[in-house]
Amino acid sequence: MENVDPTVAELGEVEALKRAVAVFRRAPSTLVGSGDDAAVVAVEDGRFVVTTDTMVEYHDFRRDFSTAFDLGYKAVASNVADVAAMGAVPNALVVAMVIPPATKQSWLEDFAKGLQEGIDQLAPAAEVVGGDLASGSQIVISVTAHGHLEGREPILRSGAKVGDVVAVAGTLGRAACGLDLLFHEDATLAKAYDEWASVQRRPQPPVSLGPVAANTATSMLDVSDSLTLDATRIAKASTVSIKLNKAALEGYAAVLELAQQSMTARDGIVRSAMDWVLFGGEDHALLATFPAGSEMPKGFKIIGEVIAQTSTPLYLDQEPLTPMGWDSIKG
Amino acid sequence: MENVDPTVAELGEVEALKRAVAVFRRAPSTLVGSGDDAAVVAVEDGRFVVTTDTMVEYHDFRRDFSTAFDLGYKAVASNVADVAAMGAVPNALVVAMVIPPATKQSWLEDFAKGLQEGIDQLAPAAEVVGGDLASGSQIVISVTAHGHLEGREPILRSGAKVGDVVAVAGTLGRAACGLDLLFHEDATLAKAYDEWASVQRRPQPPVSLGPVAANTATSMLDVSDSLTLDATRIAKASTVSIKLNKAALEGYAAVLELAQQSMTARDGIVRSAMDWVLFGGEDHALLATFPAGSEMPKGFKIIGEVIAQTSTPLYLDQEPLTPMGWDSIKG
Repeated sequence: MENVDPTVAELGEVEALKRAVAVFRRAPSTLVGSGDDAAVVAVEDGRFVVTTDTMVEYHDFRRDFSTAFDLGYKAVASNVADVAAMGAVPNALVVAMVIPPATKQSWLEDFAKGLQEGIDQLAPAAEVVGGDLASGSQIVISVTAHGHLEGREPILRSGAKVGDVVAVAGTLGRAACGLDLLFHEDATLAKAYDEWASVQRRPQPPVSLGPVAANTATSMLDVSDSLTLDATRIAKASTVSIKLNKAALEGYAAVLELAQQSMTARDGIVRSAMDWVLFGGEDHALLATFPAGSEMPKGFKIIGEVIAQTSTPLYLDQEPLTPMGWDSIKG
Repeated sequence: MENVDPTVAELGEVEALKRAVAVFRRAPSTLVGSGDDAAVVAVEDGRFVVTTDTMVEYHDFRRDFSTAFDLGYKAVASNVADVAAMGAVPNALVVAMVIPPATKQSWLEDFAKGLQEGIDQLAPAAEVVGGDLASGSQIVISVTAHGHLEGREPILRSGAKVGDVVAVAGTLGRAACGLDLLFHEDATLAKAYDEWASVQRRPQPPVSLGPVAANTATSMLDVSDSLTLDATRIAKASTVSIKLNKAALEGYAAVLELAQQSMTARDGIVRSAMDWVLFGGEDHALLATFPAGSEMPKGFKIIGEVIAQTSTPLYLDQEPLTPMGWDSIKG
């Protein structure tokens, strides 16, 4: 009798990969796709952008919170956000995975479908051009994403100038709120506020705005660790200080208030929606600086200003603000 | 008192990475190096080559057989061999690592030094332009390597033509012999035949011959899984069959005879040096086909010929040869 859902070990690497790879759609910039020693990708302006990000089971995700499809989607989102933050258009991904030998082939194929859905939604010019499948005790997902600058200069974190406005595109605090919901003892809450739990599972970075912003932005990065940590990175790299405007951030917190109140009502633990906005990561918003008065792409919202460097890199209104967020080793 | 060798968890990701990254040397093709959301690399002909390979502790390596320096070297070697096998010059690597939080910072820095030594020896035009450090229960090393074709066409595995010669550059069987030595109950043997154990720890692929061979080769790949598996891949992709010449392979086996005899003398287990040559992987030799009579780069040695496709993809002299080797999931 045929085994309807074999493990990847039963199938072997070659066959397991072949079936998973069948999910992927071709992209025009791929000159040689997966299946040879290496892929070949066109970048007409003679430069490629490259970034890598790794997710580890139990540390960065849990299989009871996220489906295989979710994880594929998130692996794309977190990587193409970095490509977009340079001002580039994502064009190629390679995916290295470690999975336990007992992993079902259906899990691997659902993951591949999530990768393709992430590409379709966030990076439609890109293709999974290569990968590697290895065996290990815990799941590791390591994506390397590439992009094409289309002749533009890359937007670094070091270009912010005194007098620039600080602006953000995308959401803030939702992924952190979603994580608290998923960890909450009352499992009904994550369902009740599924919109926020979903941002944790499938972030929605405004990837297409990166190349548009690159026409006028003086600095840009993607908010992966937290607004305060990533704004501080711009400040330090640009030898400036950044003043965030609390009133401009209150809208991001306001939409999360109801979830915060519901959680506190259940367990009595006091939470702050503004803390999610300031110190939560994984929304993968784009944070950029633009010359004051310059045209800003639709979708960006001003949340602060660049001021002359002081001994404190970051302020919330007039108060020094200590950056906090995620360290992937310390946790 | 200062902790002279802290763990990476004690230092935190940012500081641990900063100290390890200080080891890396800059390369001229790097337009934006590590430290921003992504790196930017020049490829003047408007195409980049990309490949990825992952090594997992206990499955692909053991820390009692290989030092951190060895692992860094090997991670470079196995990846740049794939770039070379396309006919490209390696120019940029990104390195994603998962390490247990208790890993010593000195281990991470020795690994970085091994990466840089592998680059210096095998891919001197390349730079480590990015990476990621994550926390997990077992060490995972995932390298993505890039290369520049310098205007040449990529050499695929599908281009072999009937009448071509089959040739190899680099070593065969040594890494497999080395692995048997390292696993042998008599630990003195790996020391006595250190030259073969060393190939297992620090493979020496003939990377610089890849771009040279690309001027005349009709097909090429790097022998990572075994000569028989990889020759079969060329045969199937090119819809031909390949006949290996046993006499031409005997020289590769002959140098390993003494190690084979010493192992058998100790434990009575019969081994075959020719089996290492045919079925052993990880030497990362370049296997290529060239039109008969064409100029072949110095360093390549003819080991067979391409014949019309039969029901058997591979022969050793007149006998059908069943390919065997490494499957990274089945093990």
